[in-house]
Amino acid sequence: MTALLTINNAHKLSTPRLEMPPRLLLGAGPSNADPRVISAMSRPQVGHLDTYFLKLMGEIQELLRYTFQTDNKLTIPVSGTGSAAMEATLANTVEPNDVVLVAVKGYFGKRLVDMAGRYGADVRQINKPWGEAFSLAELRSALETHRPAILAIVHAETSTGVRQPLEGIGDLCREFDCLLLVDTVTSLGCVPLLLDEWKVDLAYSCSQKGLSCPPGASPLTLSDRALEKVHSRKTKVANWYLDLSLVSKYWGKERTYHHTAPINMNYALYEALCLVAEEGLEARWERHQKTAELLWNGLADLGLSCYVAPELRLPSLTTVGLPDGVDEAKIRRQLLDDHNIEISGGLGDLAGKVWRIGLMGQNSRPENVERLLTTLKKLL
Amino acid sequence: MTALLTINNAHKLSTPRLEMPPRLLLGAGPSNADPRVISAMSRPQVGHLDTYFLKLMGEIQELLRYTFQTDNKLTIPVSGTGSAAMEATLANTVEPNDVVLVAVKGYFGKRLVDMAGRYGADVRQINKPWGEAFSLAELRSALETHRPAILAIVHAETSTGVRQPLEGIGDLCREFDCLLLVDTVTSLGCVPLLLDEWKVDLAYSCSQKGLSCPPGASPLTLSDRALEKVHSRKTKVANWYLDLSLVSKYWGKERTYHHTAPINMNYALYEALCLVAEEGLEARWERHQKTAELLWNGLADLGLSCYVAPELRLPSLTTVGLPDGVDEAKIRRQLLDDHNIEISGGLGDLAGKVWRIGLMGQNSRPENVERLLTTLKKLL
Repeated sequence: MTALLTINNAHKLSTPRLEMPPRLLLGAGPSNADPRVISAMSRPQVGHLDTYFLKLMGEIQELLRYTFQTDNKLTIPVSGTGSAAMEATLANTVEPNDVVLVAVKGYFGKRLVDMAGRYGADVRQINKPWGEAFSLAELRSALETHRPAILAIVHAETSTGVRQPLEGIGDLCREFDCLLLVDTVTSLGCVPLLLDEWKVDLAYSCSQKGLSCPPGASPLTLSDRALEKVHSRKTKVANWYLDLSLVSKYWGKERTYHHTAPINMNYALYEALCLVAEEGLEARWERHQKTAELLWNGLADLGLSCYVAPELRLPSLTTVGLPDGVDEAKIRRQLLDDHNIEISGGLGDLAGKVWRIGLMGQNSRPENVERLLTTLKKLL
Repeated sequence: MTALLTINNAHKLSTPRLEMPPRLLLGAGPSNADPRVISAMSRPQVGHLDTYFLKLMGEIQELLRYTFQTDNKLTIPVSGTGSAAMEATLANTVEPNDVVLVAVKGYFGKRLVDMAGRYGADVRQINKPWGEAFSLAELRSALETHRPAILAIVHAETSTGVRQPLEGIGDLCREFDCLLLVDTVTSLGCVPLLLDEWKVDLAYSCSQKGLSCPPGASPLTLSDRALEKVHSRKTKVANWYLDLSLVSKYWGKERTYHHTAPINMNYALYEALCLVAEEGLEARWERHQKTAELLWNGLADLGLSCYVAPELRLPSLTTVGLPDGVDEAKIRRQLLDDHNIEISGGLGDLAGKVWRIGLMGQNSRPENVERLLTTLKKLL
């Protein structure tokens, strides 16, 4: 049969062995995966309905609950990168014409606006300059004006390095009978995060930053209040892959096949979450804070200033004002090409105005700060 | 700061080392990943905008073109499992009220119906009994009746083991000015597939079957005709994560950040595609055919019959009629628990009526057929 076929070999590359340089990833993400995580990812594959895998799924859910600090039943990894988990929150809770209020203070707030609109939401936004955070008074006033079904806000803005204080916002949302949706992409595993205590209804994150796992399986959790809204939908979720009414039957007791889960990515995530549990959240948060302070002090010694005020500064992601007259892209290229250190440039409004330095998960260590500062000193 | 926080340790499991049994995956998928693929997946991580990664992305695209037998510019891996790639085809090409005709002859045809409906399509379906394929005459008649914008059909139905002949359908679709969308989840890398020659406009697949790669990065390709429809959309794609107008700017020349690609999954996919190119498609297809014939003959020796007629039988996925009076689930459990061999039960209309045996990618080898048949003989 195949003898009759004419094969097009134009795209048949001669295939060299995959070689990658040993980068130290101190940008806005991904961070380097822990060697234990990489090793776990390579364990023998089982099927996505194998009893061994089903057991592992239960353990991953428990460890995600610990890491998110929530008792939420529906706490799972989404089979995609962080943006897929972000989209899952909106796809499942937004019905056409629902008012969704997004508190925008950076690039990822804007992404929430874009996504919510695609699900037919009546999107309203309030804006703050990039580098600042919202006050409770500002949020209260916006809730009064817009009376949304959902208030969406980013906890750790990867584009600005701002930590949005979350205390009190959950109470406000209950008062105004709306759901609180929080982006924890750059905070989970790095920064104090107490979903239940703060009355967060929907949260998502990624694997490749604070959890030091490769990208591809992304934490998501929904409170019972959020689930109520999902269950009382009048319309089908306008996204099959992320439809939680289907996905939750695979991750729940029913074990009904939906899609083939990324098996090895879940091995990796499990191991990454084990590392969080073994270290303990309190110790992990403190480590991130202390390492970041080393960086901030070191930057000051080099005459560089942080873009964000100390009380709002994220330990996981630092935005650094650029020194006068420096070709910022050139320095980043030198760091990468000559020293195997990745840091990121600015994004959106802050493009060309800052560097972004990530100290996330396993990468949040004094020796990495020292290596970066020493090298940066040479290049400046 | 953290001293004041009350941590909930209820979900902090004591975390055992991740242990998985050495399963031989001969079910409907996943298949075992090749050791070279697993090893590639563990190479040092670089960032998703690193020049090394950008170069790799280009090579993956070329190798996907070879494997799909297409010159399509937009040929990429979707950052999710096969169902995400399936959804990407529909999300990007369907606009509200477009007529989408789905030729349903199994479980995954039904999934296409469900998905297309979520994007507002006016979905029409034609149906065949599970185990059969559509003739050109039947498709022509349906095209005449429904005049769809898209005809969707599954090449290799994982639920039935049927190979749908595709020759001539592309010409029909040009005649009726509609796009041809083909599911190649269980055919890519296993079964002769010539996308350009057969004038297929949209195709998607997965990594974990014929490519012997873990699940999590899924091939997708669009012809220029399909791209034209994408570019002339009047509405935004109702799915941010899978919006090809954004995704293609990351995979194309612009290299504009969209979402963080699953880096290590792409390492794995690259290596899996290298294995395809090294073996050559013709040899690979022939290997699958010969191994499947060994299985079919061996099953006959055991008095078991294949569910699908020989001329429509997939070499990658065989449905087997159940012997009288046998507890099919018990046999599958024994195969798995006592012999570490996974085969699948029936799905949908064929639940409880067949076993599904996969011989895909690296698993398509005589020694695996022999191990399965020997064990099955003991258990029956």
